[in-house]
Amino acid sequence: MNGAESLVHTLLASGVDTCFANPGTSEMHFVAALDRVPGMRCVLGLFEGVVTGAADGYGRMAGRPAATLLHCGPGLANGLSNLHNARRAGVPIVNCVGDQATYHRPLDAPLTADSEGWARGVSAWVRTSRRASEVGADAAVAVQAARAGHGRIATMILPSDTCWDEGGVVAAALPVPPAPAVAPSSVETIARVLRSGEPAVLLLGNAALRATAVADAQRIAAATGARVSAQMFNTRIERGRGRHSVARIPYVIELATKALAGVKHAILVGATPPVGFFAYPDKPSTLLPPEAQVHVLSRPDQDSAAALAALAETLGAGRLAPPAHETFAPATGAISSEAFGRSLAALLPEGAIIADESITFGRALFPMTHGAAPHDWLQVMGGSIGGGMPLATGAAIGAPGRRVVNLEADGSAMYTLQALWTQARERLDVTTVVLANRKYAILLGELANVGANPGRTALDMLDIGRPDLDFVRLAQGMGVEAARAETMEAFNDLFAQANRRPGPFLIELATD
Amino acid sequence: MNGAESLVHTLLASGVDTCFANPGTSEMHFVAALDRVPGMRCVLGLFEGVVTGAADGYGRMAGRPAATLLHCGPGLANGLSNLHNARRAGVPIVNCVGDQATYHRPLDAPLTADSEGWARGVSAWVRTSRRASEVGADAAVAVQAARAGHGRIATMILPSDTCWDEGGVVAAALPVPPAPAVAPSSVETIARVLRSGEPAVLLLGNAALRATAVADAQRIAAATGARVSAQMFNTRIERGRGRHSVARIPYVIELATKALAGVKHAILVGATPPVGFFAYPDKPSTLLPPEAQVHVLSRPDQDSAAALAALAETLGAGRLAPPAHETFAPATGAISSEAFGRSLAALLPEGAIIADESITFGRALFPMTHGAAPHDWLQVMGGSIGGGMPLATGAAIGAPGRRVVNLEADGSAMYTLQALWTQARERLDVTTVVLANRKYAILLGELANVGANPGRTALDMLDIGRPDLDFVRLAQGMGVEAARAETMEAFNDLFAQANRRPGPFLIELATD
Repeated sequence: MNGAESLVHTLLASGVDTCFANPGTSEMHFVAALDRVPGMRCVLGLFEGVVTGAADGYGRMAGRPAATLLHCGPGLANGLSNLHNARRAGVPIVNCVGDQATYHRPLDAPLTADSEGWARGVSAWVRTSRRASEVGADAAVAVQAARAGHGRIATMILPSDTCWDEGGVVAAALPVPPAPAVAPSSVETIARVLRSGEPAVLLLGNAALRATAVADAQRIAAATGARVSAQMFNTRIERGRGRHSVARIPYVIELATKALAGVKHAILVGATPPVGFFAYPDKPSTLLPPEAQVHVLSRPDQDSAAALAALAETLGAGRLAPPAHETFAPATGAISSEAFGRSLAALLPEGAIIADESITFGRALFPMTHGAAPHDWLQVMGGSIGGGMPLATGAAIGAPGRRVVNLEADGSAMYTLQALWTQARERLDVTTVVLANRKYAILLGELANVGANPGRTALDMLDIGRPDLDFVRLAQGMGVEAARAETMEAFNDLFAQANRRPGPFLIELATD
Repeated sequence: MNGAESLVHTLLASGVDTCFANPGTSEMHFVAALDRVPGMRCVLGLFEGVVTGAADGYGRMAGRPAATLLHCGPGLANGLSNLHNARRAGVPIVNCVGDQATYHRPLDAPLTADSEGWARGVSAWVRTSRRASEVGADAAVAVQAARAGHGRIATMILPSDTCWDEGGVVAAALPVPPAPAVAPSSVETIARVLRSGEPAVLLLGNAALRATAVADAQRIAAATGARVSAQMFNTRIERGRGRHSVARIPYVIELATKALAGVKHAILVGATPPVGFFAYPDKPSTLLPPEAQVHVLSRPDQDSAAALAALAETLGAGRLAPPAHETFAPATGAISSEAFGRSLAALLPEGAIIADESITFGRALFPMTHGAAPHDWLQVMGGSIGGGMPLATGAAIGAPGRRVVNLEADGSAMYTLQALWTQARERLDVTTVVLANRKYAILLGELANVGANPGRTALDMLDIGRPDLDFVRLAQGMGVEAARAETMEAFNDLFAQANRRPGPFLIELATD
């Protein structure tokens, strides 16, 4: 058995059975091993950002790591920004990077690069395998490292000779410790804070945003008068009809500080302290009032759901009736963010997964869909543009049978558009809605935020409508059927049709 | 004056007047400064790999650095692989990366990443500016660092407050030392080696591949019996009708070792010792015979052209008559690599710039175009796929008035396809020929090279024809006119037309 075969066997034994790949020469033995070892689903991406972003989406929905397969340092580099997003999302990924043979690396052939150095910024664990006999053991540790905490990126760098040499040894799966429990004393402390009656907010992140946990947070709020809010960006929120809803901290600094005004106690439940996405001249960097005290019920890697349940019991918080949400009929007429939100709320299929990279146009969508059919809402967590389409791709593979709806701003869509081809190839049930306003609208706002008065050159840098992007042709060019909607009626028809049929479909929604 | 304004003024004062950009919020003051300070040409890319690859192409043709403008660590990450290519090409780039404000960075907002760490692997010089008053001085040093040697990447990281704070100071341009001369004693040493009459090869790289230098190398060869070869990959070769030609070391190991068989003396002229692009089981890593002695006439950063001229004089090598190259008529009938080579040789416009990422299908093209109209030939130097289309884009901006012909394999085209939009927006004179064989043909060869016998899963990973990519629609979707050629006659017509009219055009050439 060669090293590559021991790698595939070990990954399978450790529960990793999906591999997103963009292989090159140094990975050919891994590819050959996939033939000889059955059981690994391989999904090809035409660009590494698709591969790593899909592994993010897969991990969020499947709850276990996929493997990647990337080609040398530069292939890793192309995947880094979506690994950054996955790291921020706390998603487990076993990130496999092929590399020059151990004895070839010192010769500094053109593709040679500092793979370890580049991997470190996104990885909780990095190891370069030294010989074929150690690849299996390295892989088992990598899976364990990826599954530790609430999910991390473990990067294995595989010199090609460690893959082709004989002497591979399959390693058994290593135990993965469960999420650490929150100590009863911490629950007691938080209960005391809440009983004080002083203005408090429960800030939810990560596992605290599953439906049951949100319901527990809301009954705590009802019993104590505390507010509840999700973080600004979140890995996965279970929500929709019949589920208790939760607002998010707004992106815009003024709205965020307003939402948190008067708070005396911020209680973190799987969340981190809220800070501005960026700094701006003469605006605060942190979003809580200066006098607010920060308390931790649970860290992001802890069992936040159990902690909330225990806190609710400690407080004697009663169960709440299922919430009644505002419902909408599909919108007609002119296209607007609000109209789109109505139609989305009305037409979203049951069990949908929303991959949200809708940026400026999309800010109205989350608040309007509390009463949509039950669904999961995924955000691009690290703020690196281009995560949305790969995220949708991987989510569809991680949760087969559920419709994925990708809300994608046009500027963002152009970063990792190649994901559409993988959707077509794998016949994934993804409906992409490109919100085509033909500008970097968020940056026009940001330019105003920094106090600049834009002239011609600046406006040129923020205008992507010269020439216009035609997303229908772009999608068709990658084998995905597509159509453009210029009225809400047209959108409603296309959206309903797209969600009923198998496979991917793209709708270009003409917005302002 | 704020820091951003001092940056733009200093770049202009140092001779940097072109900026390839994909800005974000943290760069809004730079963007605003571009309005207030006239003279900087800004070129927008929809993805950072376009930005950095275009800076590579620009630097190669303009002979001086462009600036980039990237958004935080993840934006830098998206540009790394083409920076890797540019580093290997010895191209000067002033790589500007915006970042979180100095006081905001410790809060670890989502986009925060290890920008310095990621930059180091591609940069000869990295500096994070500390305050607005230092940005100008930092920029002047960055330009100097970029222009040192034969061209390097200097990365400036600009926290947003160093851009928006007042107190910017414009810095004067710093001197750039000329390429170090080769000592006369080194020329004498090499002359003695060549006079020995033992089998020798002059290995040319970098500045040794301009037309005059190649002519000097060939007259040295004629006088001494030495062979002449260019490196496997080269930044820029001046060639074509009336110019002396030079072969390159082949990519395939067996062909490379055969080409260098019997060599007793390898004389490096701006080149590095030849090594395999990859290692393979039971094949050599280095390409020279084990008994060959390696001599250095000039390092890549030295004045190789002057060294060759001095060596030719020392050896008393006579001037050669202009060479007579084989010429071709445009090919007719079925499409093949050889037929394409004939048509390219026949139809290439005078003064063209070829950006070559033609991979497997393209291997016949270089040898067949020695007698084409005079042109420059640029290769993707670091081996990171996806450099070709951005390279073509930047070359067109760095050498206005010349036609750029981008020979692009279909698999490679899908990495950084967004470059087409920039070509349309800037109305660049680029003819792209996508060689559409609908597979990763090079990897099928590599799979055989590593001794693997591919099965269904492996073949699936190397097949990009399910679904077929339609490059005509993809180009049209980004505003570039395009057509598909299924015969050589159709190609000849399209190619001639495309090269005659201003602006970009894409031809999808149906190949096997």
